Amino acid sequence: MIELFELAGADEAVRFSPYCWRIRMSLAHKGLDAEMVPWHFQQRDTLPAGTSTVPVLVDDEDVISDSWAIAQHLEAAYPNAPSLFGGETGEAHARFVAAWADKVLHPALLPLVAPELLTQVRPEAAAYFRETRERRLGVSLEEAAAQRETRLGEARAVLAPVREVVGSQPFLGGEEPTYADYAVFGGFQWARLVSQHEVLAAEDPVHGWRERMLDLFDGLARSAPTA
Amino acid sequence: MIELFELAGADEAVRFSPYCWRIRMSLAHKGLDAEMVPWHFQQRDTLPAGTSTVPVLVDDEDVISDSWAIAQHLEAAYPNAPSLFGGETGEAHARFVAAWADKVLHPALLPLVAPELLTQVRPEAAAYFRETRERRLGVSLEEAAAQRETRLGEARAVLAPVREVVGSQPFLGGEEPTYADYAVFGGFQWARLVSQHEVLAAEDPVHGWRERMLDLFDGLARSAPTA
Repeated sequence: MIELFELAGADEAVRFSPYCWRIRMSLAHKGLDAEMVPWHFQQRDTLPAGTSTVPVLVDDEDVISDSWAIAQHLEAAYPNAPSLFGGETGEAHARFVAAWADKVLHPALLPLVAPELLTQVRPEAAAYFRETRERRLGVSLEEAAAQRETRLGEARAVLAPVREVVGSQPFLGGEEPTYADYAVFGGFQWARLVSQHEVLAAEDPVHGWRERMLDLFDGLARSAPTA
Repeated sequence: MIELFELAGADEAVRFSPYCWRIRMSLAHKGLDAEMVPWHFQQRDTLPAGTSTVPVLVDDEDVISDSWAIAQHLEAAYPNAPSLFGGETGEAHARFVAAWADKVLHPALLPLVAPELLTQVRPEAAAYFRETRERRLGVSLEEAAAQRETRLGEARAVLAPVREVVGSQPFLGGEEPTYADYAVFGGFQWARLVSQHEVLAAEDPVHGWRERMLDLFDGLARSAPTA
């Protein structure tokens, strides 16, 4: 039995964490069922011992936090299921893609997502959410919302490497999606589930790629509840 | 017999093109000898028919331009030599790394390199060089030089994903270097050969990685002539 502890909104059906989506997609890629356990900001005592951030995957005896470590566990523990990385070098290279998503994509999307997300976390977590996100943003959530057009242009600009690749192959993983795709898709799914605003222009090759991602696994990500 | 047409400085011993260095390193990785043919900006009529930019690789009947296409050719034509990509998925993922270097790393390094490079191209190419690079920079070469400290900070900031990866594994390719490493290294070799200024702080994990790259193939890149 696999359990995945993941971030939930005030409406517990809404699961918007980009890091948790990496693992949701990875579990589907591996054909694995899991029980999804909702977790809320600041609820540290409800996570398995030794962990403090979601996602946390519990797979029998193994308790793993950090999306990269979880993906590595799934690849090692389920070697006969479709590969997430396509071998050792594929895994080494995917690490760059995931690091890019962590360090560049998520910070670029944060000002576009955080203002609306404030209203979707539990009221008791709102102050924590505001404080931590405003510190990352360097401006208030209201200022971030007011700067939306500028921030949108910047976010679209940082997508240049994704745009280049998915303009010449269907997925970052090549003909089929890999963990590299899930690592980047998480950010877009976060934006999609939380924000009323569209991040991608319809003619952007990244938009076409995101549509392909939303179609995977019988529309797993497309059918996810939004606020 | 393999020939590689590559960009040369006014001093023809100096070969600074980042794209050409990707291929120099790839040839060494594959254990292939090649005759290096110097080429200068604007000398289009001296390149093989059908090509207009360096690097150009001529391998018997095959004439290939574009560093990515050349790497793909080397991988396909020399399958028994060490792999540049580590398989199909490794290749798909490496494309993202190369696209990041093209779209993010090189533009970030350009203002740090171009002012000094002006003095290292042939005098007859200086006007062409200035005009094309100032268009890309959006400022004059002299203004770029005056903004050096700001641009250096920006360039170091964009290295975050490289820093993250080479902080946890020796090379972008994992335990051993792959084309992903050569794609990123090209930019640093360009800066190193052209500029008197150091781009990387000594304590930066990216600096340690660059040292490992400079050591490869008996110090191939370390021993390259500078202006």
